Amino acid sequence: MKNPTDDYAFRLEMEVRDYELDCEQIVNNANYLHYLEHTRHKFCQAAGYSFMAMHEEGIDAVVRKLEMEYFSPLRSGDTFISCLNIERKGPRFIFHQDIFKKEGEPVVKSVVTIVALKDGKLSKGDEIAEAFKAYL
Amino acid sequence: MKNPTDDYAFRLEMEVRDYELDCEQIVNNANYLHYLEHTRHKFCQAAGYSFMAMHEEGIDAVVRKLEMEYFSPLRSGDTFISCLNIERKGPRFIFHQDIFKKEGEPVVKSVVTIVALKDGKLSKGDEIAEAFKAYL
Amino acid sequence: MKNPTDDYAFRLEMEVRDYELDCEQIVNNANYLHYLEHTRHKFCQAAGYSFMAMHEEGIDAVVRKLEMEYFSPLRSGDTFISCLNIERKGPRFIFHQDIFKKEGEPVVKSVVTIVALKDGKLSKGDEIAEAFKAYL
Amino acid sequence: MKNPTDDYAFRLEMEVRDYELDCEQIVNNANYLHYLEHTRHKFCQAAGYSFMAMHEEGIDAVVRKLEMEYFSPLRSGDTFISCLNIERKGPRFIFHQDIFKKEGEPVVKSVVTIVALKDGKLSKGDEIAEAFKAYL
Repeated sequence: MKNPTDDYAFRLEMEVRDYELDCEQIVNNANYLHYLEHTRHKFCQAAGYSFMAMHEEGIDAVVRKLEMEYFSPLRSGDTFISCLNIERKGPRFIFHQDIFKKEGEPVVKSVVTIVALKDGKLSKGDEIAEAFKAYL
Repeated sequence: MKNPTDDYAFRLEMEVRDYELDCEQIVNNANYLHYLEHTRHKFCQAAGYSFMAMHEEGIDAVVRKLEMEYFSPLRSGDTFISCLNIERKGPRFIFHQDIFKKEGEPVVKSVVTIVALKDGKLSKGDEIAEAFKAYL
Repeated sequence: MKNPTDDYAFRLEMEVRDYELDCEQIVNNANYLHYLEHTRHKFCQAAGYSFMAMHEEGIDAVVRKLEMEYFSPLRSGDTFISCLNIERKGPRFIFHQDIFKKEGEPVVKSVVTIVALKDGKLSKGDEIAEAFKAYL
Repeated sequence: MKNPTDDYAFRLEMEVRDYELDCEQIVNNANYLHYLEHTRHKFCQAAGYSFMAMHEEGIDAVVRKLEMEYFSPLRSGDTFISCLNIERKGPRFIFHQDIFKKEGEPVVKSVVTIVALKDGKLSKGDEIAEAFKAYL
């Protein structure tokens, strides 16, 4: 049987840490952005691209837009699969980032638009596209 | 002259705390969700509504959907105005939450959709609507 | 050759996530408390003890005292071993929690004193001691 | 009548933000380090010292040691006073940082030892001492 996590170029298994819960005993909504960012950075690492190394060369990838739907909250003890696809639209890199519980239940679905700044100004993103060419 | 922050039902002045910066020396994108949440809770407090008191009665307001655009990053030392309007669409409460630098420059613009769970199940949101009636 | 991480009852391998870095490009000092807490909770889980299950029975383990020395900062890309020993001193549970880089270099050394509250009041900690008896 | 917060060189009023609570519905212990850091930075700002400006000159103030006692937890809606005294011991700057509820009840008491790195190496701290001379 097909698992919904099969359709992605990159996936990362993570687990909830209790300090990420809030007073409603579910993962606080801001922490999903941490999960998404960490997934992007691990994907970049797998693609041979380092955010810190780029930063030192004056190139900063920054979030330009975020759309996220929350389906089912994560709770203490949950493990989950954070999945990612990437496409390029001119200077914009569109990350489709979805999180599923291990059994396949959707947790969040998101579209994260990243642009590259070069010395603080919007760039065409060619350095980033070069790093991701195997996935675009 | 008109300031863009005039068009909102609620506004809150805040300032960047240095621990909110990340290695790119700008406020990490997840922290804007903290700013937005804190603004909603202060708005609720001003409206006489307490998240914790509601939680103890079995009613949890949870984020269902988030759309956010990032215009200009916040940096160390910045103060900003976090602004909010609210509308109801059936069981959904739509928060229009925009952040501006003090001089009026936009930082982020967002639409946050909240639903109310009652004992874990989606409710019609009438308890929340009652609390916010002066603003809807 | 002996590795300094051999002397502990529990150890957990973790890696730095870039959102944990601050504007000095090192892990922000508060995040070490997150690492320590997560390590304690994973240790508890290994010992068959659940913080959330205990919380629902009215027993909350809370930090009473913390002593921490910082030796060498963690940076982007670092993996580390978070190590733990536990001893009981009456109602107090003393966690000796040290973090090392993979090569054995010390990062932080800490002593975390935990007490148990039962319905909000200091307890003798017997429920917790029962859960940890294999390690005390 | 004397308030315990009178005995400090610097004090800052803050309030709990709900995202700082954890699943035990009290402020998570790591967030006190955020409160302490923010208080130090606001103190530095009042003394005319900027962490970011120093960082750009190659001088980083880093935490070397932390001792903290937790007396009474902060909860949703609490406001508190974060207080600070500073003394110099050679290359070490000792911050005595205590937090009280508004009515004077102690929340945490801490001693935070800071050292200055210059281009990554331990410095004598003379640049920092110069900035703080009115308080030492």
